[in-house]
Amino acid sequence: MEITRTLAKFIVTHHYRDIPEKVRHEAARSFLNWVGCAVGGSRHETVERALAALAEFSGPPQATVLGRADRLDIMQAALMNGITSHTFDFDDTHLKTVIHPSGPVASAILALAEQQPVTGEDFVHAFILGVEVECRIGKAVYPSHYDVGWHITGTAGVFGAAAAAGRLLGLNERQMTWALGIAATQSSGLREMFGTMCKPFHPGNAAKNGLLAALLAQQNFTSSNQGIEAPRGFAHVLSTEFKPAEITERLGETWEIALNTYKPFACGIVIHPTIDGCIQLRNQHQLKAEDIESVSLKVHRLVLELTGKKTPQAGLEGKFSVYHSAAAAIIHGAAGEAEYSDAVVRDARIMSLRDKVTAVADSSVHEDQTQVSIKLKNGNTLEKFVEHAAGSLAKPMSDADLEAKFRALADGILSKSETDKLLRLCWDIGKLKDAAEVARASVSNGSANRS
Amino acid sequence: MEITRTLAKFIVTHHYRDIPEKVRHEAARSFLNWVGCAVGGSRHETVERALAALAEFSGPPQATVLGRADRLDIMQAALMNGITSHTFDFDDTHLKTVIHPSGPVASAILALAEQQPVTGEDFVHAFILGVEVECRIGKAVYPSHYDVGWHITGTAGVFGAAAAAGRLLGLNERQMTWALGIAATQSSGLREMFGTMCKPFHPGNAAKNGLLAALLAQQNFTSSNQGIEAPRGFAHVLSTEFKPAEITERLGETWEIALNTYKPFACGIVIHPTIDGCIQLRNQHQLKAEDIESVSLKVHRLVLELTGKKTPQAGLEGKFSVYHSAAAAIIHGAAGEAEYSDAVVRDARIMSLRDKVTAVADSSVHEDQTQVSIKLKNGNTLEKFVEHAAGSLAKPMSDADLEAKFRALADGILSKSETDKLLRLCWDIGKLKDAAEVARASVSNGSANRS
Repeated sequence: MEITRTLAKFIVTHHYRDIPEKVRHEAARSFLNWVGCAVGGSRHETVERALAALAEFSGPPQATVLGRADRLDIMQAALMNGITSHTFDFDDTHLKTVIHPSGPVASAILALAEQQPVTGEDFVHAFILGVEVECRIGKAVYPSHYDVGWHITGTAGVFGAAAAAGRLLGLNERQMTWALGIAATQSSGLREMFGTMCKPFHPGNAAKNGLLAALLAQQNFTSSNQGIEAPRGFAHVLSTEFKPAEITERLGETWEIALNTYKPFACGIVIHPTIDGCIQLRNQHQLKAEDIESVSLKVHRLVLELTGKKTPQAGLEGKFSVYHSAAAAIIHGAAGEAEYSDAVVRDARIMSLRDKVTAVADSSVHEDQTQVSIKLKNGNTLEKFVEHAAGSLAKPMSDADLEAKFRALADGILSKSETDKLLRLCWDIGKLKDAAEVARASVSNGSANRS
Repeated sequence: MEITRTLAKFIVTHHYRDIPEKVRHEAARSFLNWVGCAVGGSRHETVERALAALAEFSGPPQATVLGRADRLDIMQAALMNGITSHTFDFDDTHLKTVIHPSGPVASAILALAEQQPVTGEDFVHAFILGVEVECRIGKAVYPSHYDVGWHITGTAGVFGAAAAAGRLLGLNERQMTWALGIAATQSSGLREMFGTMCKPFHPGNAAKNGLLAALLAQQNFTSSNQGIEAPRGFAHVLSTEFKPAEITERLGETWEIALNTYKPFACGIVIHPTIDGCIQLRNQHQLKAEDIESVSLKVHRLVLELTGKKTPQAGLEGKFSVYHSAAAAIIHGAAGEAEYSDAVVRDARIMSLRDKVTAVADSSVHEDQTQVSIKLKNGNTLEKFVEHAAGSLAKPMSDADLEAKFRALADGILSKSETDKLLRLCWDIGKLKDAAEVARASVSNGSANRS
């Protein structure tokens, strides 16, 4: 079976009317969450350094860096929005593959939509198709591919960006096959980079390279016709395991974006059940830090492996500390980007409570579970068993939750009314005459125009 | 042992005076051969299509596409010169790793030299260091890495480009370590793409991405400190075998560029002994096609596996036909790009002689050998056993051979006097005040200036 060609044909011939309304709504939720993360991350040092390196080489000011006055050529804008949106590690997650699906796809096509007119309907359609392609390719090689050390958001993401951009560029089947091949031969990104600025660079690079693949294919720049499945193609070279049926089975009948999830907390997903349990106990019992004798957690073993830092010194380290996260959840009732600032991590009240938190791994506790026990100074003990964390597929963030998260991210970057307008545009993305309106509305009127 | 850091320290602290004169001369030979290939390939369809896709997004016209009037930003120029120089598959080969070393490195730093002043001495130094880095990293993972399907010129080349560009940008040791990490996480290129436009795309992409890595690191964009050797770094993720000593042993004492080779014939290296033998017999005996009854070849098995096309229909297919190559060598006494044109492949005289050529694999014949037997109509048989092909390390192309190859490539693109001038600049590269002179001199005065 010709996998690459089958996918290419699907991408270029699919009709929007064949996508159920529920799936379209999930696309809007994914997109809204992505815009919020991009705006929120837009002032980070990671972004400043990348812009300092690259802006000098930008072509015409065609597209927006979301949340900023900078305008760059569409390939650089795709790179930058991929970086900004993943900088907080707060974007969406396709749990089956741990791909962060929106970054590579949305970054590529929103930039493209600023250069050529794209309706909201075409935009959402291309977005859903791009996510479908990257997640199906990801499923075909997961987990072997991830285990060996590939950052799958980068390696699979480049296909999603090429598919979505290629769809909007109107590629024919042969060109789309080549676009997927040109994407395959740029597939890259190593897990060794986690904890450095190269991690958010990966979805940005995937967006840029996927867009490049589509633009080259549009000019009939040739590539293999079996870039994914050939013996020396993507799947066999980058994985020891290849399940082609994951790519082709029920194509057009099921939708991967329907399985997308969003993080309520700005840290690694393994700490989410702990934070959820702590916030619930705090709110139910109007808990105060000074009343607490100790906090005991029973967690999945990965929590200690990945987030076992006892005395984090800086904000970024706090994201890798279940102890800090529990303390912040109890004191602030939240674990957004603000609770992982350097100041909060070094706050004396937080540090004092953090030192009272202990955690043990328990083989009966699943990845999505935690047992929280809080012993009070008055002798009472409060208990909470979390079966599924907030934000999981079983307990998804509501539309209102997503809006609240968006507002927190945009705070300090957009005014209240600008945030309201941008939220409205995100919800309405599928109905806009011009999808690029979202990009323009992400920039505050208060920003200087530094194109 | 810290491999990445050791390499980084070597790159940033090395002195030009510690490179022997012989090695410097080999660098000039490599560079001259690379410039000729880039100029010669500059009008190919592959290049036209890539330019049509990308030029619209170029930043300021900072750097030259060699042989053309187009001027692009340095990253796009690096990409394009990597593509042009590998389009004919006529560039240099580091036989131990089958890396084509000059493409990624020279494309990156010649573009950079057009944006910031670089002396010829600094240029040659950075070039030699870049080639050293990519070939040592290649040796550490070869052959497993290549066998699984990686196009090593792309995957190792990105490190060479980052090292050389980073040296010219004056990175410190920490920044150079990050530049190698940012290169590692972009390492890509699949052998499945051989025979398509994506093959020359690989050295171009390596040049662009390596330059990007150096520019990001210059702004302190962080990456891993063990991008090459970490369990989830380049070597372990992209290879089943890793020999770190190949990177660090005798670093600064031996020079990989001293082992570089150049193709006298514009086709896969496995046919070179056959062509060499046919040309020798032709010249010794003033052979004419009409006197020949049959041509019998005893060859290494790879010759038939890789170049066994009996009836090629187009120029590019001719490069994969030992039969066409032998016929062209006997009739034209050469196998340059001209002998692989569509017209020559379809020429009746060539086709008639080609059909008289037979080849058998013989296990006693090594890769660099061929036994040629030509039976004449007068009953005589001419024999030639080629022990080492022209262009191999044992029988290298002379400086005069390289000049003749260069002239043939530049023919029709530059005038005779322009070619003379460019050749002189290439030989003198190490003494130029401004290395960018070479780039400017590669463009004919007859070309319109279409920046």
